Amino acid sequence: LPSENLPDARGPLIAIGGAEDKQKEKRVLWQLVRLAGHTEARIVVLPTASTVPEHLAELYVRVFQELGAPKPEVLHVYERADASDPGVLARLEAATLVFMTGGDQLRLVAKLGGTPVSSMIRKMNARGVPVAGTSAGAAALCQHMIGRGRSGQVLGRHMVELAPGLGLTNRLIIDQHFSQRHRMGRLFSAVALNPFLVGVGIDEDTAACIGPDNRLTVWGRGSVTVVDGHHLSYTNVHEVDGRTPAAVLGMSSHVLTAGCAFDLVDHAAYGPPPPPRPPPPE
Amino acid sequence: LPSENLPDARGPLIAIGGAEDKQKEKRVLWQLVRLAGHTEARIVVLPTASTVPEHLAELYVRVFQELGAPKPEVLHVYERADASDPGVLARLEAATLVFMTGGDQLRLVAKLGGTPVSSMIRKMNARGVPVAGTSAGAAALCQHMIGRGRSGQVLGRHMVELAPGLGLTNRLIIDQHFSQRHRMGRLFSAVALNPFLVGVGIDEDTAACIGPDNRLTVWGRGSVTVVDGHHLSYTNVHEVDGRTPAAVLGMSSHVLTAGCAFDLVDHAAYGPPPPPRPPPPE
Repeated sequence: LPSENLPDARGPLIAIGGAEDKQKEKRVLWQLVRLAGHTEARIVVLPTASTVPEHLAELYVRVFQELGAPKPEVLHVYERADASDPGVLARLEAATLVFMTGGDQLRLVAKLGGTPVSSMIRKMNARGVPVAGTSAGAAALCQHMIGRGRSGQVLGRHMVELAPGLGLTNRLIIDQHFSQRHRMGRLFSAVALNPFLVGVGIDEDTAACIGPDNRLTVWGRGSVTVVDGHHLSYTNVHEVDGRTPAAVLGMSSHVLTAGCAFDLVDHAAYGPPPPPRPPPPE
Repeated sequence: LPSENLPDARGPLIAIGGAEDKQKEKRVLWQLVRLAGHTEARIVVLPTASTVPEHLAELYVRVFQELGAPKPEVLHVYERADASDPGVLARLEAATLVFMTGGDQLRLVAKLGGTPVSSMIRKMNARGVPVAGTSAGAAALCQHMIGRGRSGQVLGRHMVELAPGLGLTNRLIIDQHFSQRHRMGRLFSAVALNPFLVGVGIDEDTAACIGPDNRLTVWGRGSVTVVDGHHLSYTNVHEVDGRTPAAVLGMSSHVLTAGCAFDLVDHAAYGPPPPPRPPPPE
């Protein structure tokens, strides 16, 4: 990754669609350990989104250790006051990767928003430290976060409730458990509400990695759906009521799998590199 | 509709997404009666797709009568031999609109394909007679028909089984009960298999009317999703197995509601006409 050569660049953001494999190949979590520095890794696990945070944090600590990270640590942030604790901040500052678990993204942001922990995570990412989240932890990475929503393909304002997220990126809006929970309608609706945002719908056991060069790449078993309103020509999503479906014309979509990429600056999608050609016969 | 002024042009095709209102406003079925000539209408109902054809045909005859069509007739085609019956063919030939009910599109095509009835329907449409179908009857309008498939957003060859349809259009591939049965994945997959086809996913109680000018317009309560692979830049749908999701880059989608249109020649989507501006102050 470019960030490994450019220590001054912003660090990667890794958004995981939830339910990543923790028992077999662990492909997605292995990429996090690699990014964190493998045997030099200092991963901190932030389980604030969860209602069973201790349990969930211990699970991830064990898996990261199995993958070779020497001493993953848990940040015990359960109430807002914990997010100013000097011991917590010292452990956070030493991390080579921050990992936010699943749970409820509204809980995560209500506990963390505006605290020294939240501010430090943003600063660490700005100076090159990777920040990762799964499920709720992925949703909360964005400035504009999907807080709640409905399943299905129908479009409309009523399909999605937006809330302010942790603000590590303002270009994207992330949705998770995407194919598994039929969330095309709510992501289309969120992007139609402000087509500046690029919608990123991430399947389970799959990750979107946004590099310092603003190139999105895909890891894992499923697909990442990019919903791009850059050329959107018409929508009435702002004016229809909850009983009437909204119209959206000119949306581009790209369904990316491992090896594909999307450039967030150029709005261009790329397939995997072609296999090398055989040498010409002599 | 242009066909009303251009008697030599091909007739409209009307694809209904199933479950159209038969009791309250009956907006979609009213449009059929209007197209058929209202009090001059001679509608024939073809219930071959259904396993309860008599029952279903009687229901539509009653509703078309309630809407002012004087004498809707049932074409009793239940076996292939019925589709060569001179009495059936004479009643069909006199029709001002052909309506095919729901049921199973594979049944419909297996009974009708290659028969004089099927051939006459194509010829009648070519000389201006509107042909309409709901649910299975809509799917079967196309040259390439979705015979079976799976629900969900995932892409892949295994999501969709294609079969040869009645061939009234070769530009489109139609899917029905679209939002209600979560059929985005199978329509994307069908279009990715040959991006010449424009995918048209029609919600329940909603219709896509393809005019003689190859302009698709929308009637009814829901939306019609157009999936256009005209600018598709990459897919591996042909080579991935059933356990691996396929990638598709550069798909355009348009979610149209009543008043919107899609031009099948230019691949351009249009919103409803803007409301008239108030006159300038004097």
